[in-house]
Amino acid sequence: MATDFSIAAIRAAAERLHGQVVRTPLLHSPMLDELAGCRIYVKAEALQHTGTFKFRGALNKLLTMNAIVRQRGVVAFSAGNHGQAVAAAARALECPAVIVMPDTAAKNKVGSCRWWGARIVMYDPRTQDRSEVARAIAEPAGMSVVPPFDDFDIMAGQGTCGLEMAEQLRELSTCPDTLLVNTSGGGLASGMTEAMRDAFPTLRTYVVEPRGFDKMARSLASGQPEKNATVPDSLMDGIAGPQAGARPLSVLLRHGAQGLAVTDTEALAAMEAAFRCLKLVVEPGGAASLAAVLARKADFTGQSVVLVASGGNVDHEVYARALALRRGSAP
Amino acid sequence: MATDFSIAAIRAAAERLHGQVVRTPLLHSPMLDELAGCRIYVKAEALQHTGTFKFRGALNKLLTMNAIVRQRGVVAFSAGNHGQAVAAAARALECPAVIVMPDTAAKNKVGSCRWWGARIVMYDPRTQDRSEVARAIAEPAGMSVVPPFDDFDIMAGQGTCGLEMAEQLRELSTCPDTLLVNTSGGGLASGMTEAMRDAFPTLRTYVVEPRGFDKMARSLASGQPEKNATVPDSLMDGIAGPQAGARPLSVLLRHGAQGLAVTDTEALAAMEAAFRCLKLVVEPGGAASLAAVLARKADFTGQSVVLVASGGNVDHEVYARALALRRGSAP
Repeated sequence: MATDFSIAAIRAAAERLHGQVVRTPLLHSPMLDELAGCRIYVKAEALQHTGTFKFRGALNKLLTMNAIVRQRGVVAFSAGNHGQAVAAAARALECPAVIVMPDTAAKNKVGSCRWWGARIVMYDPRTQDRSEVARAIAEPAGMSVVPPFDDFDIMAGQGTCGLEMAEQLRELSTCPDTLLVNTSGGGLASGMTEAMRDAFPTLRTYVVEPRGFDKMARSLASGQPEKNATVPDSLMDGIAGPQAGARPLSVLLRHGAQGLAVTDTEALAAMEAAFRCLKLVVEPGGAASLAAVLARKADFTGQSVVLVASGGNVDHEVYARALALRRGSAP
Repeated sequence: MATDFSIAAIRAAAERLHGQVVRTPLLHSPMLDELAGCRIYVKAEALQHTGTFKFRGALNKLLTMNAIVRQRGVVAFSAGNHGQAVAAAARALECPAVIVMPDTAAKNKVGSCRWWGARIVMYDPRTQDRSEVARAIAEPAGMSVVPPFDDFDIMAGQGTCGLEMAEQLRELSTCPDTLLVNTSGGGLASGMTEAMRDAFPTLRTYVVEPRGFDKMARSLASGQPEKNATVPDSLMDGIAGPQAGARPLSVLLRHGAQGLAVTDTEALAAMEAAFRCLKLVVEPGGAASLAAVLARKADFTGQSVVLVASGGNVDHEVYARALALRRGSAP
């Protein structure tokens, strides 16, 4: 299946999105390097429209749809970030949007979807299947479901983040050793891996997940898309979806990606480090890769490591918890 | 005196600094626009090396110095941000640095100066004059004092932020109505104003200061550099220096700049808005201009307003206070 996905699709997406997405900076901090014992480059996708990379995939998907079909509206199921992205992309292209959200979603993400003009439908992730809820809304209304990750247009859109990262590394004359990507369904991980391995063929790649909910790592081991056994009780809501995507998995398998997992506390510590060293607001799921490096989940000593701070949509309470890990200390 | 300062000096500084400073993004958020009732573009200088625009001026100054003189070392007096910038620039150019800091400086800024390898000398701002303390260290050692703002090379370095902003606005096909700049001595304000008024001659410009400590607004009124009557008791430590600079003042007078002032609470509210809408960590003094717009200190309705989030070096406790202003609310 992965033969349908290539760097050409990502390049086409980049042309389509040109001028409509933020070319987010690739940040570097000597202080962060010292903490980690390696050289870290952080792609600041928290600065992307809607606060996450998800806007890239959503807008690319909507732009590839037939305009008449699109005008009937789009439906997305999402813990929040994909929902916000679809809502914002729909607003940009002036079509209706319905976002189906679990009642466990972070408050700020629910509020943001509503702000972008989408209608919100809540469901109970313990008893209901989100894709069925979405389908039940879309079909009678002739609306299209915008999948969160298991879709080549979505993956290509997310991959534009990797194209930019490769360009930015070339501008710095830097050849990275390792790429880490925060991963749930695998849309970002597959797009980034495809784009970055095209530019740097010897690059080692890791997907990073919440500990205990490492469905993609298990999928990479079994060779087929696995699910989380239970609904994750994790602060990393942005990367706590129920299942790995088949198409993303096939891309990740082709590139030999490996899995790492981090705890909530490690993610909070990484958020605090990003506050202090990068001046970037990062949400727990968006900090997973940085957490993996700082907690030395593999031996990155002396390497050049690139990763994505994939989102910044975090509730005030959770952010205050991250700050409290180091309150009163300096620098 | 201002005849010695022009756009040519800023362009020369930009060439000198090319590849050594971060081309910080110009951020935009529809949510922030809604809060403000106007269109806001925020130059994210918190993402600059050392967390503030100050690195631009410091590195430009050190690069224009005679290399043998520079090698003897540099001394800076600073509440913290200029100190960090000089310390980092000195490290980049491998020369010694001493930073003279008030004992009221934010802890994180003191720690950062030390981290960059500078020697720290504390003084009491209630009883000692910082420039005299700096001179007493520099002269016997043959070291050079790097002034914080009243210097054409410093002003030209800070002005490169304005050159970038003008380019970024042109890329967006946007002609701004108003520029606001967080101001203490006036280095950034004069450099930005010179660069931006060259690109947009009808631009209206404001300096923004802590309420009650508006030495530059008073200088603009009197036509000569004024001092703060007392040592400011303000969270906005980055823009709470004792006096306005003569050279910056002459530039600001030539361009007809006006003054606005904000309270600590207004600055904290702007920091919270930057957290929520921009995912950018901003320190109190770095948030003054955003605070002035959000608190509607002048009528910006319907305008395109550009401003600089000039720094992100904030203690954890102070940031937690900003978050607490809106904890529990959404989006």
